[in-house]
Amino acid sequence: MISNGPAIVFDLDGTLVDSVYQHVIAWSAALRQAGLDLSVWKIHRRIGMSGGLIAHALLREAGRELDEAGLEKVQKAHTQLYLQSLDTIRPLPGARDLLAFLTERRLPWAIATSGRRRTAQPVLGLLGVADGTPVVTRDEVTRAKPDPDLFLEAARRLDAQKEDVVIVGDSVWDLLAARRARALGIGMLSGGYGREELEAAGAYRVYDDPADLLAHLDEIGVRT
Amino acid sequence: MISNGPAIVFDLDGTLVDSVYQHVIAWSAALRQAGLDLSVWKIHRRIGMSGGLIAHALLREAGRELDEAGLEKVQKAHTQLYLQSLDTIRPLPGARDLLAFLTERRLPWAIATSGRRRTAQPVLGLLGVADGTPVVTRDEVTRAKPDPDLFLEAARRLDAQKEDVVIVGDSVWDLLAARRARALGIGMLSGGYGREELEAAGAYRVYDDPADLLAHLDEIGVRT
Repeated sequence: MISNGPAIVFDLDGTLVDSVYQHVIAWSAALRQAGLDLSVWKIHRRIGMSGGLIAHALLREAGRELDEAGLEKVQKAHTQLYLQSLDTIRPLPGARDLLAFLTERRLPWAIATSGRRRTAQPVLGLLGVADGTPVVTRDEVTRAKPDPDLFLEAARRLDAQKEDVVIVGDSVWDLLAARRARALGIGMLSGGYGREELEAAGAYRVYDDPADLLAHLDEIGVRT
Repeated sequence: MISNGPAIVFDLDGTLVDSVYQHVIAWSAALRQAGLDLSVWKIHRRIGMSGGLIAHALLREAGRELDEAGLEKVQKAHTQLYLQSLDTIRPLPGARDLLAFLTERRLPWAIATSGRRRTAQPVLGLLGVADGTPVVTRDEVTRAKPDPDLFLEAARRLDAQKEDVVIVGDSVWDLLAARRARALGIGMLSGGYGREELEAAGAYRVYDDPADLLAHLDEIGVRT
């Protein structure tokens, strides 16, 4: 049987749902509650890593340390503040159409996010993701992006060889993790990174958002 | 008399104060109130233009139109929502030190912002900008960035030839306006654009934030 194309693993925040800026603001406020005033653009550039890595990286940048309890508290505050902004979050243009198209064509796809199930679950509903769709969250792997574990676990659930996997993400961390998984990385501008930042991190192609990817699926090997 | 360096004109939001993401969220909410769901990253990439241009550009992108009253309403909603977030806004690292250094050395500097006096005034206080400092706002010129009017008016108030002016800004619109003013443009990453986006728009140099610029003033012709 000739394949219709690759297995596709999507990042969630900034790639399928328009939630990056809400995460940024929630992290900023959570860090401030812990006495840390960090430049907001530096927080933006860390989104896509796990909450633990974000907090560690930003503390290092600020020349500060927090014990495990302090770190846990910051992460909990972020979760709570982010969930308060849920009513402002929408699917990105074309996200629902893209996933429906892939499903209809029986092309294997999954979602792999550095976020926890608690923050991911509500937005999966917005996307109309059916039960049974492989969704790998931070809770299910030892290490989040830029480690490749999330994407490798998603590939395993799709029964795909990692060399046949295309990974779609909006952050540099997605693309670095894609390279570490030896998969092809596709960048999305919808998380607010610049095109060249994604290209420099190894993006094979960069699209505006899911609608733009849907219009160019042939470029990534999907027969349409 | 040998000059100690150029006259420096600073953008405000994202260049001296860490307020870009709050503007983005306020625009997003204001546009949604008018029935427009626009991707947040696209709003981010318009910050730095005047409110009128932002609204026009985003409506065009969404394939929608609003009459003058509708546009006015969106802009007012943005102002109101932005002012509600003022308590989360801080000077960027090094901003106060940089301005104090220039003042101490009697190097001429000014601020030129696409924002209105109403939104600019509260953050000028955060920066410790003294009365009498030239500050040009949207209210005082016919056209905002990427037109060069704001920067030309600031140069006029500094009694500087435009060829002797260095313009510091975080957005592509600052750098395009700098080129139209035939001035040297300096980019700042602190507004959340990528380095290459600023370089492609004509930045002579790109720094992280005011602290980084202060550490490299010799690169832009300031004798320290």
